[in-house]
Amino acid sequence: MKDLGYYNGKYDRIENMYVPMNDRACFFGDGIFEVAYARNHKIYALSEHLDRMYDSAAMLGYNMPIRKDEFASLLYELSLKVDSPDQLIYWQVSRGTEMRSHAPQSELTANIWVTIREKVMMPPYERAKLITFPDTRFFHCNMKTLNLLPTVMASIAAKDAGADEAIFHRDGMVTECAHSNLCIIRKDGAVQTAPADKLILPGVTRAHMIRACAELGIPCIEENFTLEEMMNAAEVVIVTSGAQFRPVREIDGQSVGGGAPDLVAALQEKLYGNFLKETE
Amino acid sequence: MKDLGYYNGKYDRIENMYVPMNDRACFFGDGIFEVAYARNHKIYALSEHLDRMYDSAAMLGYNMPIRKDEFASLLYELSLKVDSPDQLIYWQVSRGTEMRSHAPQSELTANIWVTIREKVMMPPYERAKLITFPDTRFFHCNMKTLNLLPTVMASIAAKDAGADEAIFHRDGMVTECAHSNLCIIRKDGAVQTAPADKLILPGVTRAHMIRACAELGIPCIEENFTLEEMMNAAEVVIVTSGAQFRPVREIDGQSVGGGAPDLVAALQEKLYGNFLKETE
Repeated sequence: MKDLGYYNGKYDRIENMYVPMNDRACFFGDGIFEVAYARNHKIYALSEHLDRMYDSAAMLGYNMPIRKDEFASLLYELSLKVDSPDQLIYWQVSRGTEMRSHAPQSELTANIWVTIREKVMMPPYERAKLITFPDTRFFHCNMKTLNLLPTVMASIAAKDAGADEAIFHRDGMVTECAHSNLCIIRKDGAVQTAPADKLILPGVTRAHMIRACAELGIPCIEENFTLEEMMNAAEVVIVTSGAQFRPVREIDGQSVGGGAPDLVAALQEKLYGNFLKETE
Repeated sequence: MKDLGYYNGKYDRIENMYVPMNDRACFFGDGIFEVAYARNHKIYALSEHLDRMYDSAAMLGYNMPIRKDEFASLLYELSLKVDSPDQLIYWQVSRGTEMRSHAPQSELTANIWVTIREKVMMPPYERAKLITFPDTRFFHCNMKTLNLLPTVMASIAAKDAGADEAIFHRDGMVTECAHSNLCIIRKDGAVQTAPADKLILPGVTRAHMIRACAELGIPCIEENFTLEEMMNAAEVVIVTSGAQFRPVREIDGQSVGGGAPDLVAALQEKLYGNFLKETE
């Protein structure tokens, strides 16, 4: 198949797939999602993505219909049905299906949604152009939920500005990007990224980056930084499953970064290199 | 019909209705909704609900597929297909349908969703039991969007506590309830309710209440109040399309209100009385 949509046991091309109107995703955004890249039907960092999903599901009180290892098997099985060796694997679970009521009126079982499309992970070498955008999101950003309207608004603003991503900030403090984490490389050579509190998503690639810094002997500090500190940093880097470790050249029309290309290259080699190796 | 679900021109019983997986409501909660009560197929305050929806749609950049008067005609037409004279009319629009992408990749037209179910508006006389709950929502609460997870969490907490509603507060200041506005009647006889900023929904019934106060010569102040001011007020009252003006007897297990029953009754007569009169 060219692409695949799956819902609770049924699958077809994505645009042929229909879901029950009463799925709680439709009325409340009452669901959580994950995105991973696959190459040669090997799904990168799958167990970490599933760990995060099951953690969020527990926080939200969802009854998961299958175990984590069964979910992994399902995703591998569906990946094999899609022809391309380069795939974007998206999956979400919603709380369940019921007549609309804010608090569920019965014991619900979560619904499983999957889409698989052809997509090559972007090599991280082309420097990105970003904008800044006020972070007006809720205080549950540690969960990867379907309540994504502020992210949509920021992404539209970025697209309208011809930019690749939007950087969120609350009162001048940088949190993360609309759909990526963000770090800076300071002039003293330390990597700095916002702490994993309720204001950011604890990204899988962010965790890989912290581990890579330790392995390479690069100091890595989990502390907030300001917009000003970012603009004056040696490097600004997007940290995401979609490009691993992608440096930035411009923010709001001003040049940034470029001051620590060797550190950027070392981390790229580690992070993007690992992806290529493990999906060989 | 006993109940009705409608999606872009098709309708059936709600539980038989399916929607495209790629509707942006499903992935992003990228939609807005309204709820109104009908009696004898007269939809109460419909034009005010539609005004608010079209205002939010403009703020979010949605392309509405039909004019406001056509939307009203559609809802009346669908109301006639449902047998019961007492109806809860729910409708939402989502930004459109497209392969998942945070920023839309093409010109989209909004999708129209409607559900109609039998429901009698609750007479406002039975005093309610409430809980308080931290307001962790985003900063777009002035729009009635589908990003409702914090509302779902608060509603589950209220249900678990055997309560009717949850009162949201930010740093000790009361904003509104999970799916209602809230006001207090102060010991000096003034009505006080949070201002219509981005932290609350500008409720249709809230607007009716402000008008009713003016007509009855009751001072009405749009200013924030604290949890403590609420607990010590003469009355605490839920303001909502679903019960119009419903006083509260208990919050977090403590007795509240009961100190201005004549003012409560005067406003109930005006607000619930108007609903009964206009849907006769």
